[in-house]
Amino acid sequence: MSETFLSECISILARTPVVLDTQLRDLPEPFITANEGPETWNPYDVMGHFIHCEKTDWVPRIEIILLHGEKKAFTPFDRFAQMRNSKEKTVAQLLDEFAALRKANIEKLAALYITAEKLVLAGTHPELGRVTLKQLIATWVAHDLDHLNQVNRVMAVRYKETVGPWVQYLSILREREPKIMN
Amino acid sequence: MSETFLSECISILARTPVVLDTQLRDLPEPFITANEGPETWNPYDVMGHFIHCEKTDWVPRIEIILLHGEKKAFTPFDRFAQMRNSKEKTVAQLLDEFAALRKANIEKLAALYITAEKLVLAGTHPELGRVTLKQLIATWVAHDLDHLNQVNRVMAVRYKETVGPWVQYLSILREREPKIMN
Repeated sequence: MSETFLSECISILARTPVVLDTQLRDLPEPFITANEGPETWNPYDVMGHFIHCEKTDWVPRIEIILLHGEKKAFTPFDRFAQMRNSKEKTVAQLLDEFAALRKANIEKLAALYITAEKLVLAGTHPELGRVTLKQLIATWVAHDLDHLNQVNRVMAVRYKETVGPWVQYLSILREREPKIMN
Repeated sequence: MSETFLSECISILARTPVVLDTQLRDLPEPFITANEGPETWNPYDVMGHFIHCEKTDWVPRIEIILLHGEKKAFTPFDRFAQMRNSKEKTVAQLLDEFAALRKANIEKLAALYITAEKLVLAGTHPELGRVTLKQLIATWVAHDLDHLNQVNRVMAVRYKETVGPWVQYLSILREREPKIMN
């Protein structure tokens, strides 16, 4: 069963860089730099965030759980690192870098040979407290899909006015208001 | 300017079948058949919906605007046609069919040679009333992105329980409640 869970997770994780590449490589610039307003991310920022996560978040945290269990808390994640680290890079460079990092991390994940017993091991999240290895890996997958949605949404929002009366049929253009108010 | 608008739209429209193919071909079955509850669509349904739209919605409506203007209302769209039309087909067949239809429709769109003056031409939507050609084409793009988001969301929702306390950080898993209440 852990084998099914892991292989299903990897089936999504392995696709994410390819999906992002398909969507963003050679896309007209206005889509890459569009965002949803002040302090929101554009697709360029999202690529940098994916890269920073590959370097500092998922596999390092998996390793902390396996090596230290709950005794050593994860390093807090820096949500704004990509603003400093990727500002000189092209879209193509970021896509290539993310793909290479993800490939290497999936290989590391496979090499850790995570059995069903290991999935229930726990670590300590600096804000959330006790979290399990299985929760961490499922979050990796859901986080991928979350940011793919962010990219789609940001691109769609460029046409929010242009679609005219159709806006009421397009949930991608409607559902932000409740979230902004949160 | 219409040239920029159209070529930007096509840059998204042409990618959608490739994105969907990358995400869904050979994906483990549970992701294909997962949905968000009663009367919601799974990724299989979304593929059928994309196909039905290519056949009956976007280009046929563009042609109605160009040929008849506001005098002839669009044929109402059948949101459930895919439930009847695609139930015997495999995921691979649906992906191939959508890709072929989209390719042909982009070729038709290019052959219509839509200039800036034509973009302001209007037609009659059976529910929304007067809509312009530009609004229709922008809606085609936003509708693609909307259903790509639906596919991501449905896949992520499979892990809604599994992510444990991380659920509060994942907007893809949180933002449905307000919509269901609408």
